[in-house]
Amino acid sequence: MVVRAAVAGASGYAGGELLRLLLAHPEVEIGALTGHSNAGQTLGSLQPHLRPLAGRVLEPTTAEVLAGHDVVFLALPHGQSAAVAEQLGDEVLVVDMGADFRLKDAGDWETFYGSPHAGTWPYGLPELPGGRAALAGSKRIAVPGCYPTAVSLALFPAYEAGIAEPEAVIVAASGTSGAGKAAKPHLLGSEVMGNMTPYGVGGGHRHTPEMIQNLSAAAGQPVTVSFTPTLAPMPRGILATCSAKAKPGVNAEGLRAVYEKAFADEPFAELLPEGQWPATAAVYGSNAAQIQVAHDPAAGRIVVVCAIDNLAKGTAGGALQSMNIALGLPEDTGLSTIGVAP
Amino acid sequence: MVVRAAVAGASGYAGGELLRLLLAHPEVEIGALTGHSNAGQTLGSLQPHLRPLAGRVLEPTTAEVLAGHDVVFLALPHGQSAAVAEQLGDEVLVVDMGADFRLKDAGDWETFYGSPHAGTWPYGLPELPGGRAALAGSKRIAVPGCYPTAVSLALFPAYEAGIAEPEAVIVAASGTSGAGKAAKPHLLGSEVMGNMTPYGVGGGHRHTPEMIQNLSAAAGQPVTVSFTPTLAPMPRGILATCSAKAKPGVNAEGLRAVYEKAFADEPFAELLPEGQWPATAAVYGSNAAQIQVAHDPAAGRIVVVCAIDNLAKGTAGGALQSMNIALGLPEDTGLSTIGVAP
Amino acid sequence: MVVRAAVAGASGYAGGELLRLLLAHPEVEIGALTGHSNAGQTLGSLQPHLRPLAGRVLEPTTAEVLAGHDVVFLALPHGQSAAVAEQLGDEVLVVDMGADFRLKDAGDWETFYGSPHAGTWPYGLPELPGGRAALAGSKRIAVPGCYPTAVSLALFPAYEAGIAEPEAVIVAASGTSGAGKAAKPHLLGSEVMGNMTPYGVGGGHRHTPEMIQNLSAAAGQPVTVSFTPTLAPMPRGILATCSAKAKPGVNAEGLRAVYEKAFADEPFAELLPEGQWPATAAVYGSNAAQIQVAHDPAAGRIVVVCAIDNLAKGTAGGALQSMNIALGLPEDTGLSTIGVAP
Amino acid sequence: MVVRAAVAGASGYAGGELLRLLLAHPEVEIGALTGHSNAGQTLGSLQPHLRPLAGRVLEPTTAEVLAGHDVVFLALPHGQSAAVAEQLGDEVLVVDMGADFRLKDAGDWETFYGSPHAGTWPYGLPELPGGRAALAGSKRIAVPGCYPTAVSLALFPAYEAGIAEPEAVIVAASGTSGAGKAAKPHLLGSEVMGNMTPYGVGGGHRHTPEMIQNLSAAAGQPVTVSFTPTLAPMPRGILATCSAKAKPGVNAEGLRAVYEKAFADEPFAELLPEGQWPATAAVYGSNAAQIQVAHDPAAGRIVVVCAIDNLAKGTAGGALQSMNIALGLPEDTGLSTIGVAP
Repeated sequence: MVVRAAVAGASGYAGGELLRLLLAHPEVEIGALTGHSNAGQTLGSLQPHLRPLAGRVLEPTTAEVLAGHDVVFLALPHGQSAAVAEQLGDEVLVVDMGADFRLKDAGDWETFYGSPHAGTWPYGLPELPGGRAALAGSKRIAVPGCYPTAVSLALFPAYEAGIAEPEAVIVAASGTSGAGKAAKPHLLGSEVMGNMTPYGVGGGHRHTPEMIQNLSAAAGQPVTVSFTPTLAPMPRGILATCSAKAKPGVNAEGLRAVYEKAFADEPFAELLPEGQWPATAAVYGSNAAQIQVAHDPAAGRIVVVCAIDNLAKGTAGGALQSMNIALGLPEDTGLSTIGVAP
Repeated sequence: MVVRAAVAGASGYAGGELLRLLLAHPEVEIGALTGHSNAGQTLGSLQPHLRPLAGRVLEPTTAEVLAGHDVVFLALPHGQSAAVAEQLGDEVLVVDMGADFRLKDAGDWETFYGSPHAGTWPYGLPELPGGRAALAGSKRIAVPGCYPTAVSLALFPAYEAGIAEPEAVIVAASGTSGAGKAAKPHLLGSEVMGNMTPYGVGGGHRHTPEMIQNLSAAAGQPVTVSFTPTLAPMPRGILATCSAKAKPGVNAEGLRAVYEKAFADEPFAELLPEGQWPATAAVYGSNAAQIQVAHDPAAGRIVVVCAIDNLAKGTAGGALQSMNIALGLPEDTGLSTIGVAP
Repeated sequence: MVVRAAVAGASGYAGGELLRLLLAHPEVEIGALTGHSNAGQTLGSLQPHLRPLAGRVLEPTTAEVLAGHDVVFLALPHGQSAAVAEQLGDEVLVVDMGADFRLKDAGDWETFYGSPHAGTWPYGLPELPGGRAALAGSKRIAVPGCYPTAVSLALFPAYEAGIAEPEAVIVAASGTSGAGKAAKPHLLGSEVMGNMTPYGVGGGHRHTPEMIQNLSAAAGQPVTVSFTPTLAPMPRGILATCSAKAKPGVNAEGLRAVYEKAFADEPFAELLPEGQWPATAAVYGSNAAQIQVAHDPAAGRIVVVCAIDNLAKGTAGGALQSMNIALGLPEDTGLSTIGVAP
Repeated sequence: MVVRAAVAGASGYAGGELLRLLLAHPEVEIGALTGHSNAGQTLGSLQPHLRPLAGRVLEPTTAEVLAGHDVVFLALPHGQSAAVAEQLGDEVLVVDMGADFRLKDAGDWETFYGSPHAGTWPYGLPELPGGRAALAGSKRIAVPGCYPTAVSLALFPAYEAGIAEPEAVIVAASGTSGAGKAAKPHLLGSEVMGNMTPYGVGGGHRHTPEMIQNLSAAAGQPVTVSFTPTLAPMPRGILATCSAKAKPGVNAEGLRAVYEKAFADEPFAELLPEGQWPATAAVYGSNAAQIQVAHDPAAGRIVVVCAIDNLAKGTAGGALQSMNIALGLPEDTGLSTIGVAP
């Protein structure tokens, strides 16, 4: 199979990571690369780490340029995907790496994004219950947010198994690439190095309803989420520390058994051996999610920590994993659990 | 007043920070400096940032060397302070920067430290209810742990005011200096840069009983604590994200009022203006604790974030602040809320 | 003495560092603080580490606002100082932290800055031969560039003593704050962390003529300078590695003797003990310049390394040191050689 | 072809990077993995980023364990390779990633390493004049040091073309992984973050004679090298800034032509387009060397900057590239110029 892929938004961090992964995908041929303000520039000047594509010139993001591909990846600012997707035919696989089609509840979308809801596409987190079935053969994929990827992987097994109370508390640290490549003063190196700081505290982060959606589906009942994201002094990586009160009768062995079962056959989500904890450095550049669990009897809670690379499993790798499923390719084609460390 | 001070453990990070602050304290004269394996070396080779003391030579940590000072600071490994303190007279102010005398419950000590309990000294966190009264005139001070400093400042107002359920969930990020200067593979620069990873998950961290002690005292009832520390890629700083379910009737205004009152007259703990969140970079090298609160009505929780410098307010600055109180000096002598940034 | 000081450009990194130091200066009272696009905002929101000034509001940078002070510090973009300075009276001490009045040669200015030359003011590097005499009683001070500060301190002794050939080769690493607080994509944290990259290679950096000016004056003959600056993944600090061919007869002892003599009485420039090399971390936040020398007989060169804090000794600390001299205060008033580490 | 490869020293940074690359090499099957103090431990606990090998257990480094492979990689401390290599048959390809067989001059070895010289093997830098011929079919390969790789690539074209005077001045910054995984206090994260510091100044670094050897061979005459390495706050990467006086008549165009020709057909060494400078972040994890040149007419020097990943092109990638040549495989098998960024 030769899959011809276009990437809209090739100059950003998500687009760059996607290209890095596509270059290693044996079935994909990289087609049009588009940008907005960067159209006309070479990829070599914008993504100097992607030497094989250094001479490619970004084109404007138009339906004409994106036409004639088997897959079109949209790495665009939130709210811009729908207009582009509409102009692409139904036979083209469109993979939206933005937020536009993730939420099922139009009210949630409007509350958190302040614009009309564009719709809901099959959700690109194969590890969730029913996840693969929803993606197989689909022509539209909504790639999850990076935080919801880590958090949903961490907590869906507990909720699916009914061992956790439906009130999740999550504190996550993210590398700065999660905030994108637009130059903003608070993202300057001088500001972020040596610094940890929270944002969107108290329920304001746009990824919160997406977490609620996923966890509630796993639990079969509404789950509340207290989510606090923090910005960490590293370019990549998410470390999500997630906890909930344990249902009566839960103990360490039972907890571990639930998670062993949940990830036993997963190629990209792993329950680490006992005693080893996830580290963002260990998944740098890889599509792996590392997970570990603990039962805290004194506090009566289960604690689950998940580490992912926000750009890989959290965005571009997850997109590619879902594309593979949609196209009927082996799910791990072009993807690996090998990180770059130190 | 001239206060002659000795520092036992001057080669480590806590000792170095204490010396940095003592050099700026107008009433203190720095006396003996001691080390263990580093005895005989110059401070200039061990703490190259403290140029005025570069020529000082470390002496061995003995009662003879430490005798004849008004204040002796102990920056020793856990479990070593009691033996030294016993040999110092009752008229000497002994400030223990280790854990030995922090806990009231001997059983907790034995569970978490695995050795006989040495006793309990007045606790060096003046901002806690009754904190200053306990320190005034005291000849013994137990300096709090760095995490308990941040967490107790974040949550005691809510518990004292009775607006939070007695089940606290805390995730904190610490800079690497919190792990000390002993060379261990997982603390190498190659390992920590670009990396976030948890440790002591599930209630195993030694600072947990200290938090429980402080928060339970503020609440007037037992408080459980789920505490997850994480190691962040920065040399200093703690960012503690703390939350608890709100008691019925709590709202944003009421929450803020509680915290405004708690810190209104505090020189070193500040509720930031609305909309501004704590950042470890803003307290780098300063004795300030920056605090901000949010009410999350959807999750039914209050969220409090506190940033401190683990070596300053979290250790050496807190020690000096308590020393000032014990000696009857103005509490802020030689201390400031000015950080070094960027 | 009470010196009333205004700071034009208080929202940037140089202005913030100056305020940090002024807050610790016992003779200075901080007057007007001005900004450009930030006028009307509180300093607390712009410089969250300077809590004692958090409530101060930035005013616009006008002659009216800056009037009535004993000292006016200008931390403005290059080319803007002259217009402001003209409107301030001759009796006011004006300290320009920009480049406008550093160069003696109008042609050099025009070549490197592309605008008419505003003039030349007494140069604020007291350690240079004749440096203090030029500043004493002066009402105008041109604060050196950060790179020229490090490089001139490293090499002037060798040139003054006539032991080095007049062709200097310099490679320097700078922290990101040297590039300022304006949000530019290549200065994002995501870009700079984990990254070393050169810029202005081949003689293009604007600090090159300033180095040539200083070193040629010390040598009494024209000195050429090959200067390569690099951007390092740290917020502050300059490490300048400087070398030149040794004149015949130079050896390690003679080289060291020259440097010992040059810095024997300097409060803020220190030749480190043999075997200890400068480190930017050791001067973080301090006004110290750390210097070490080596003779490489196989290559026939002397190598001098100097570490400074680009914002402290390299900008704001140097400005204050020069101000002290100009006002007849003890040179080290409000300044120290104590860094913040780790 | 199936190449069965053993790795001695699999727990260190070089060994880990080699395994990462071997996992992606289509012709290699990974055989025995050995360690010293880590023998008996799983690779998953030592190299948590290499999930496909997580269950492999390290064996002791003995001839028995290493027997029966087509290729044996030695990632051992300096001085230990000879004893192991002697016990492996002549028909086995032995690739030494240590220093033991790099130098031709026994006196240089003894001066810099203080032990008897073990011999000289074909040198694994294919880009050097005659480099590939020396490797083709060889059964022994000495992998270059990381600094000499960057420096030799940067300067050999100028020396081969006779456009530079034989006195090179080099200042290089290295990430901390270059110092290895042994826990030493000055390599702690607390020490290296925010810090730049030199070491081995004045000709003392062990890589200096290797640079001299390579550059003198290219020049056809003795070249002196002034080399100053600096430790940079990043886990990986080398940025080498190299310069030499230009021979009379050299200009920017001629200089560029020399470098364009030198790297025109190289798969892993690239002269960047004009105006773009090498960045270590752009080669993170890749086998690429990025090079850029400038002519500084005022200083009369040519300046060449080279960025590599010290563990990839600088060690494990270079080893694999040379192995490919020795085995008659396409040189770029399993290697790429694609980095991981940001």
